[in-house]
Formats: sequence, structure tokens, C-alpha cells
Amino acid sequence: MQPADNASLITPFYVMELLARAKALENQGRDIVHMEIGEPDFSAPEAVVEAGVRAMRAGQVKYTAAAGLPELRSALARYYGEHYGVDLPERRIFIAPGASGALLLALAASLNAGDEVLLADPGYPCYRNFVRLFGAEPVSVATRASDGHRLGWPQLRAAWSGRTAGAIVASPANPTGVVLDEPTLGELCEGVAGQGGFLVSDEIYHGLEYGPRCPTALQFGSQAFVINSFSKYFCMTGWRLGWLVAPDSHVETVERLAQNLFISAPTHSQYAAVAALADPQARAELEQRRLEFQRRRDYLQQALARLGFGLSAPPEGAFYVYADCSRFTQDSDAFARDLLEQAGVAITPGRDFGETAASRHVRFAYTTSLERLEEGVKRMERYLAGVSRDSAAPGF
Amino acid sequence: MQPADNASLITPFYVMELLARAKALENQGRDIVHMEIGEPDFSAPEAVVEAGVRAMRAGQVKYTAAAGLPELRSALARYYGEHYGVDLPERRIFIAPGASGALLLALAASLNAGDEVLLADPGYPCYRNFVRLFGAEPVSVATRASDGHRLGWPQLRAAWSGRTAGAIVASPANPTGVVLDEPTLGELCEGVAGQGGFLVSDEIYHGLEYGPRCPTALQFGSQAFVINSFSKYFCMTGWRLGWLVAPDSHVETVERLAQNLFISAPTHSQYAAVAALADPQARAELEQRRLEFQRRRDYLQQALARLGFGLSAPPEGAFYVYADCSRFTQDSDAFARDLLEQAGVAITPGRDFGETAASRHVRFAYTTSLERLEEGVKRMERYLAGVSRDSAAPGF
Ligand SMILES: Cc1ncc(COP(=O)(O)O)c(C=O)c1O
Ligand SMILES: Cc1ncc(COP(=O)(O)O)c(C=O)c1O
Repeated sequence: MQPADNASLITPFYVMELLARAKALENQGRDIVHMEIGEPDFSAPEAVVEAGVRAMRAGQVKYTAAAGLPELRSALARYYGEHYGVDLPERRIFIAPGASGALLLALAASLNAGDEVLLADPGYPCYRNFVRLFGAEPVSVATRASDGHRLGWPQLRAAWSGRTAGAIVASPANPTGVVLDEPTLGELCEGVAGQGGFLVSDEIYHGLEYGPRCPTALQFGSQAFVINSFSKYFCMTGWRLGWLVAPDSHVETVERLAQNLFISAPTHSQYAAVAALADPQARAELEQRRLEFQRRRDYLQQALARLGFGLSAPPEGAFYVYADCSRFTQDSDAFARDLLEQAGVAITPGRDFGETAASRHVRFAYTTSLERLEEGVKRMERYLAGVSRDSAAPGF
Repeated sequence: MQPADNASLITPFYVMELLARAKALENQGRDIVHMEIGEPDFSAPEAVVEAGVRAMRAGQVKYTAAAGLPELRSALARYYGEHYGVDLPERRIFIAPGASGALLLALAASLNAGDEVLLADPGYPCYRNFVRLFGAEPVSVATRASDGHRLGWPQLRAAWSGRTAGAIVASPANPTGVVLDEPTLGELCEGVAGQGGFLVSDEIYHGLEYGPRCPTALQFGSQAFVINSFSKYFCMTGWRLGWLVAPDSHVETVERLAQNLFISAPTHSQYAAVAALADPQARAELEQRRLEFQRRRDYLQQALARLGFGLSAPPEGAFYVYADCSRFTQDSDAFARDLLEQAGVAITPGRDFGETAASRHVRFAYTTSLERLEEGVKRMERYLAGVSRDSAAPGF
């Protein structure tokens, strides 16, 4: 009995080893500054928690309709109207277990074996593995520091082949924090639609933007799949709740997939999410947190530049800084391990996000307090002074 | 842009139309007796709810490890020891979003395109659709009333072909409530393993058994995939929490799949599930409910036989009675629709569970109180008297 061929191609998260080592060090009494974690340190606003508590205590935790609670779907439709000025029919909205579940639905509905799918390198590691699950092939499109790590239509068009079925893009992106502005996203949507391909627009970091509002792909027609989630901006990772907006051509297929694959998404989370969208107190709290993320970004960006990291693409959203560490090392894996051991700072090596420039990059997450970020920077400063003095250190 | 080939093969739940019609009638003021619903009418025991509330209020709703909270995995390992006398290493246990999620992991880890998978007809409708998702082919093995609707090794062996990769079996089964006893399950596990095939043993209705304890496939070696859930016995459907026990050969593959497909299962649900397994008060409450389900089964089984339904396979578990309605109709679909319209009783037509004898069968769920079941039976009695008088009624 052998594992399946497609499943065997799926890669693990390399950062897991580093996480396990960080935990082991903590169990030995070491203090570790965590800058590797891809989830907000904040938890859901109180009004959201209490809506979840009410649903649970009222026994309102039965299966819901596969597409989600009607009141949540209509709250989301309203949200798109208010937030983006987009008129979105509820039938196109599917509540899913996280953006992860939404991605599974979109790709299951779209991919045939042998298809190629274009993805940014660096990018979110799960994309390529979802693609492999269906016997399709992820094709990396290396973004360049000189383009600000942007993946626009010119880059996609250059990579588009006869086997390309579609593309997945994210804005703000993980790991770069790069945002696609309206003209760039609009041109991209049009370009992909012109090829008759599918576009998955991952908008999970929307709301966590520190410049102009991020546009949604839905502003540029109704052909894209949009995935989003309550995990990041709404600080509800473990609630496992996200959504998919599907084009009308795929609504019926997605409905059948959702019924069969998930039955439904977590019910108390759905009730809580209604409050997350509608409660004014919760919305105000989330806005405060956005500002706090922005302060952290401003600090970390400057501090890393001062330490000698290269920041070719200034992060405009999400909660990551993707930094070039080639002044210190050509092996970002060894660098991250050593930084953990020597300085007690945990970061994610580039390898988890792609191949092209992975060994020269690391990702810093600002999902910890400003005080802890400052402590981490202080430790790195001391550590890097040592590295520079001793340039024969193993791995550098 | 066309939906994907595999996704296009996935069938909807036919009962959904009937559900929508039932709702419409209720909105018009009609009283409907619901005997179509595949989830307990009970909600989670109080201690379970309160454990969920505590986790939520404490902000313990971050992502967990992909395989699940360590304390939940070890609670499950203990549960297998106490309940079945099986010594199960924690590393083989994966917490998933429902048995649905567990099924996705098991099949993603096992199936190659073109594989055939043997399934019972009648059976749980999602199995065949999960199989299709991976470009594999569900092969129905019709169970026979004369065998008590049992799918054992003799039936599987007869259907096993050069392309057969494995089989999915359930005990207690949906829709029949049939249980595989120790010799039958043991022989089946051995037979499938002897072919080098994979076996998925769906044990989601374990705990809801009204005769001898159901054996687990894990008693007969460590090669089967076992899927289970907190949805049914633990009355936690909307909490979306289940688990997979994987053979050692597939542990690493399943781990990578879980990381990529789900990130993790709902966190508050996981904390609540620890209480569901460990809290003595909760366990006592669940045992009371099992006895209540048994009383309902005893009543409904007798009442349906008295009305003239055929009950070739006495239901020994789950909360369903799968009944032959051929004395009244050769079109169970029309029968179910008519029963809803004329008598205000909602049941599920056989079509959702297979093909072979679907038009002569319907499923009754006893997921409503004894009083409501009695009311439903009274209405059916009146309705069937009319059907017999007027044998020219459309559809009969
Ligand atoms: C870019 C991106 N997309 C999707 C996800 C999936 O998140 P979730 O399933 O929690 O909504 C993540 C999580 O880190 C992410 O970074
Ligand atoms: C036989 C069987 N297996 C699996 C499931 C999936 O249940 P869940 O995902 O809620 O654990 C069901 C639900 O009805 C079922 O009847």
C-alpha cells in the first residue's frame, strides 16, 4: 500500500522544524522572540466571542446550509457593497472552513489533471500543493525585486503556455506584503479573462493595508474566484472560517463540492462572523489593531534596513517583511537556524515560499508587540555584529 | 471557462429539494414532522459547551498543530484503549474538520486517477463523490436484503478487479443502520489487506449501537484508515470535528496533506472535544441519549412494519431505518414528495444512497422526539390508507 502519487508531491512546511526547535529551547527556559508566526497575536473582538458563546449556549451548533448561514452570506454581500462599492449577489458567496477551504473549492471546481497554474515565487506555500493534489502542475513565476515583487499581467503573459489553465495571485501578498493597485489588478483580471483562464484572487490580507485601500478582483468583472477569510484582519484563525466568491459559471459546481467535501463550515464561527461584520464596537477595535500593525511595520521596516537587510519591496499590507539577507549569508536556512540558536529570534527562511531567491531571503512577521519586536531587533544587532566579525562562521 | 471534469461528476444531495419544499410549507404555516435529518436533535452536553466557551473567552482560538491539539490526540488514544482495548500510538491520530475532512485526507493520501474503489449500495452519498474528485471511480457493490444489507469480504472479493485500489465500508451504516460484527469485520480487514488494497472504515456512528459493541477495524491490524467524528454520538455536528487514524505507512503523507489543506481543525471545538471524551457528566448524558435513540428505534421499527414497510435489515445502530416501500410505490422519489405534500412528513428517498433498489426504498431518521415520531406515524397511517384505496394515484 503506497501513498498516492499526487499526495507524495506535497511538500511540508519547512518552518515546522524550526518551530519545534523553538519550542524545545523554550522548554529549556530560553526566551524566544517569535517573528515567524503567520497569525495575529490579537484574538477576536469581545462582541465576536460573545456572539459565538451565545450560539453555543443556545445549542445553535447544527449543520448549516452547505453555502453557509443565509444571514452571514447577506452580511458579506452588504460588506462588498459598503467596502468596495461592488454589487455582489448572495448566490455567488460560499462560506468555507477558512480561505484554505475556499481555495480547495475554487481549485476543485477548476482544475483538470495536466493543467498548469501560474503562481508567484515567492508565494504562499500551500497554493502549489493544492494544485498538485488535482494532478495539475504549479508553474512558478519569479517576481523580481526590481519590479517591487509585483506579479502583474506582463509577467503572467510571458509565462502563459498552451497548458496554462489559470493563475493564483494574492494582494497583499504573503510573504512580501506587496499590494496590487487598481490599474495593475484590473489589467491582470482582463488579461487572464482574455486568455479564457481562471483567476483566483487571494484577498485574505485585505483590511491589513497601510496605504490606499486594496481593490478586489470583483471590481473588474465577475469572472474571478475571490477567496478571503476571517483569519487575518478579523483575528479569527482558529475559528476556521473563510469564504469564496465564485463566478456564476461555477456556482452550481461549487455548491455540490461544498455539500460533499465539507457538509458545512463551523456553525458557532458563522454566528460570530456575523457580529464581526456588523458590530460597530468590533469594527472599531479591528481598526485600532490595523493601526497597531502599521506602527509595527513602520518600526520593523526601518530597523531591518538599518541592520543591513535589503528591502526592495516595501511591505504595504499583511504583517510580513520579506527581507534580503545576502549581506550576511547565502544560506537563509542556516541563517534562520543560527539566529534561533544564538540569538533566540525565530524567523522563517525563504525556502518555504519558493525557490528562485529563497536562499537569500527570510520572512519576518510582526505578529508580536512592538516591545518584543524591539527586543528581537536588539538581539539581531548583537548577533549580526558577531557574524560580521567572524565571517568564517559555518554556513556564512 | 468550464468547470473541471471531475467536479462535474459530483452529484448534489437530492434531499435538498425536498428540504427546501419542507421549509416553504412551514413558512406557509404547515406543521412538518422531520424524519429526513441526519443529525442528532440533541446538542452537545453542557460540560462540552462550557469547555468551548472557556477556550473562546480565553482567546485560545489560534491555529493548532495540523494534526490537532496534543491533549485531544492523547485523549483519543486513551479512548481507544479503554473503549476497544486497542493500543494506538498518538502519531497515527489526526484531528480533522469532521469525518468529512478525515475522509478527504484518507482518500487524498491513497487514490490515484483511474483507481476503482468499492462502495456499498446503498451507502453514504459523499463517498462516491470524494472518490470522483481524485479522478478515481466509485464501483457500487449492491448489498442484498437477503444478506441483511451487509457488505462483507465475500461481496467485496467478488467485485474486486485488477483496478480496485481499495474499499470504503461503514458500520453502523448510513442509511441501513447495519452493523458488522467482529468476525465479519475481521474477515473483511484481512481480505482487503491480503489484496494489498486500502480500507477506509467509517466508524462515525460508533457509540450509537443498540446491540453488542461495534468493533473497530483497528482491532484487526494497523493497516486500515479509520474515520470517526464528534458529530453523531457526541452530538456536535456544527462543531466540525472528526478524526482519522492512519496506518504508519501513510502518517507522513497525511501530515503534509493536513498542513496544506486545512492548516488545522476548529480550535474551540478541539478544546470542547477534550471535555466530551473526559467529562464524566458529559459521558453519562451521552449514554442517556443513546438509550433514548434506542427507544425511538424500537418504536419506529415496529410501527413501520405494522404500516406495511419492509424491514429486511433490522437497524442495529446509527439513527436510521431503511425501509422497503414497494408495497405502496415503485417510485420512492414521488412517494417522498407526496408524503410531504399530503401528510406533512419529510423522509429521504432511496435515490440519495445508491441505484440498485433506490426506487423501492426510503430512509427514516429518528432524530426527533418519540412524540413527533408518533405523530409522523399517525399521519402516514392516514395517508397510506388513502393510497391503498386510490391505487390509481399518480406515481403509484
Ligand atoms: C496568503 C494566504 N492565503 C490563505 C491562507 C489560509 O488561511 P485560512 O485558511 O486560515 O483562512 C493563508 C494563511 O496563512 C495565507 O497566508
Ligand atoms: C456515514 C457518514 N460518514 C461521514 C459523515 C460526515 O460527518 P461529519 O463530517 O459531520 O463528521 C456522515 C454525515 O452524515 C455520515 O453519515
